[in-house]
Amino acid sequence: MNVLKYPAKTEWSQIIQRPHLEVTELKKTVETVLDDVRVNGDEAVFRYEAKFDHATLRSLMVSEEELKEADGMVSKDLKESLLLAHHNISRFHENQRFESKHIETAPGVECWQKSVAIEKVGLYIPGGTAPLFSTVLMLATPAKIAGCKEIILCTPPNHDGKVHPAILAAAKIAGVNKIFKIGGIQAIGAMAYGTQSVPKVYKIFGPGNQYVMAAKQMVGIRDVAIDMPAGPSEVCIVADQSSSPSYIAADLLSQAEHGTDSQVLLICISESIVNRVLREIESQLAVLPRRDIASKALNNSKIILVKDLDEAIELSNMYAPEHLILEVDRWNLMVDKIVNAGSVFLGRWACESAGDYASGTNHTLPTHGYAVAYSGVNLDSYVRKITFQHLTEEGVKSIGQAVVTMAVDEQLEAHANAMRIRLNDIE
Amino acid sequence: MNVLKYPAKTEWSQIIQRPHLEVTELKKTVETVLDDVRVNGDEAVFRYEAKFDHATLRSLMVSEEELKEADGMVSKDLKESLLLAHHNISRFHENQRFESKHIETAPGVECWQKSVAIEKVGLYIPGGTAPLFSTVLMLATPAKIAGCKEIILCTPPNHDGKVHPAILAAAKIAGVNKIFKIGGIQAIGAMAYGTQSVPKVYKIFGPGNQYVMAAKQMVGIRDVAIDMPAGPSEVCIVADQSSSPSYIAADLLSQAEHGTDSQVLLICISESIVNRVLREIESQLAVLPRRDIASKALNNSKIILVKDLDEAIELSNMYAPEHLILEVDRWNLMVDKIVNAGSVFLGRWACESAGDYASGTNHTLPTHGYAVAYSGVNLDSYVRKITFQHLTEEGVKSIGQAVVTMAVDEQLEAHANAMRIRLNDIE
Repeated sequence: MNVLKYPAKTEWSQIIQRPHLEVTELKKTVETVLDDVRVNGDEAVFRYEAKFDHATLRSLMVSEEELKEADGMVSKDLKESLLLAHHNISRFHENQRFESKHIETAPGVECWQKSVAIEKVGLYIPGGTAPLFSTVLMLATPAKIAGCKEIILCTPPNHDGKVHPAILAAAKIAGVNKIFKIGGIQAIGAMAYGTQSVPKVYKIFGPGNQYVMAAKQMVGIRDVAIDMPAGPSEVCIVADQSSSPSYIAADLLSQAEHGTDSQVLLICISESIVNRVLREIESQLAVLPRRDIASKALNNSKIILVKDLDEAIELSNMYAPEHLILEVDRWNLMVDKIVNAGSVFLGRWACESAGDYASGTNHTLPTHGYAVAYSGVNLDSYVRKITFQHLTEEGVKSIGQAVVTMAVDEQLEAHANAMRIRLNDIE
Repeated sequence: MNVLKYPAKTEWSQIIQRPHLEVTELKKTVETVLDDVRVNGDEAVFRYEAKFDHATLRSLMVSEEELKEADGMVSKDLKESLLLAHHNISRFHENQRFESKHIETAPGVECWQKSVAIEKVGLYIPGGTAPLFSTVLMLATPAKIAGCKEIILCTPPNHDGKVHPAILAAAKIAGVNKIFKIGGIQAIGAMAYGTQSVPKVYKIFGPGNQYVMAAKQMVGIRDVAIDMPAGPSEVCIVADQSSSPSYIAADLLSQAEHGTDSQVLLICISESIVNRVLREIESQLAVLPRRDIASKALNNSKIILVKDLDEAIELSNMYAPEHLILEVDRWNLMVDKIVNAGSVFLGRWACESAGDYASGTNHTLPTHGYAVAYSGVNLDSYVRKITFQHLTEEGVKSIGQAVVTMAVDEQLEAHANAMRIRLNDIE
């Protein structure tokens, strides 16, 4: 890891640069597959499953039998862990329910918002080396709580045309309605446009490789809403002399093992802690199964020494990390100063893994600095707030003349007329 | 207007088709201008202002003197109307403030959300025939309430390099920090990338022509968040035998005058009301200043007779209108059935103009069927909800083992380690 000692603030914007994300090269492939799925539906999806996932499928939807079979293949320990995580995620997201307030903005004018679930949502769960069942819980649990009627999930099958049993178990616990064995661009296309087997959805959630990311971007422009733009996962840890070097090293490594493009940042005010962290990283890394990935990620990563915790938070806010760990005893003095972050972990016991799996917060979070403008997935992500207004005759008297004046000045006479005709009937 | 009498439900999806939006043709122009602004900053902006807005500017920012001068040019009536509208919009949006709840999801695990304003937002107000000062109030008022620190506004100047005084007056009332005389693609580019004069913002709001829309789409993919995808404005009116034909006609026309691509839909259960509405439209249209625009919009528009109000709401939900007016006495029986709409107007006195200007609800709403997945602009649009979690030693005991189990099953050993190392210290 690169250690930067007390850099000048003028260098900060350079220090927090993320690696550039380039997806335009993939654009042709992505467009071709999306168009094909839009026009040819299931037939195209089967074809791409054979081509990209090397799976010859007879049907796209996971059957009741497959669900039952999977249930028997998941260990009791894992099942209990999934239930515990689901319970905590449910508790946190249930408490995000919106309570509508009726507001009389002027005499006779009553306005309110109503939270209504998005009727159909699609969740994407990537395949690859490990089955991301935790993401199934994170995306489906709030969808169910919000009241989405159709919650579908697409995930690539293995070469035998099967989906990992833990993904199926998590989907069942969280309340997914239909699961499809579809991966990559073709999954995003199927959910965005609908096919004979796959219902069209209104919003697509979930992580994926650069092809999935590019496909979500493309359908997100016009066809369907998406959760947020994507980028590699990242963590920023703030530490002082009270911090535990071994905990910091473990937390940095837990982020670094995600992928070679992961970025980890340690902002510290104690040089002796930094030196001990470096030694701890070395010894912990040596025994990690994914040490090749993690050590590559560490090469992109930085340790920055700053003069005090205020500067540390200032730099962290500028970076806008997906995950921020305040691994210090005095975290309570710093919480109010955080303005840009996805999810924040407070104190020595709150490691990122806690929130990745089971604390109850969502782990689908804005990466790549998007935290300056985006929230992580939460109950709001699955609803719309429709506004309502009711006017009485008194309401027309309260605001009618102002509406007419403004409409006339905007040269919209028909807008003025719609109010004038009512004003005339009242007077 | 096309009148469709009791069409079969199988025809509905055809009936509610919107005109296709095509922006790919503009793509080249938009990309060229955006790139130019990104690379050349102010110099490019000045050049495009001369080229597209025919304005030779000495400075991009509206000066204090210009603001003062504008103040004297706005009539007392308009100023009072702006203040009344601002008051109502403030009241409604202030009441959307989020109250954080701390939730103990498991013993020793405490999670909460904190709502934090997006620090820098940019508002775009189009030029053209009429000054859209109402949109200034709609976009800047909630930004101010949310606590955005930097609220900037771009709007094209006229040929003399001036901005309409009513826009400046509204901006002052609503709390805009800086106003720039920049229109079109170059405005979107300046706010997305920043220039010597214009600060880079994190989210861009506001309507615009197809070039602005395409530019927002493009920067929205990666550079900056945007409020929502855009399309032509539209209204759906639901009517029965209790409805007033002259009010309905006035409301349809108030939408139709927006532009030739506006769409208005009347869903009615009474044939005699429909016939009277058609006659009313004819007589009201004849005296409208914007009758050419309105009558072209009416050509794209439809009146649909259905058998009862349940069917009317079913069809409206399928259409997912930007504005929905329930111009019926029994609206209270229908409110709960509405699942897809931007803003809803209840009863005979709640014309769309009321919400366009002064009821307090926001008039920046999802068009083109986007209401199935998007909310209109509201206080949430200007904030992020950052999640926090704090664990005690008891918290680690509550969830630690589940985290380790799941991490191991996802083959993420470093994730498991980060929790194991803490569990070991406790036990």
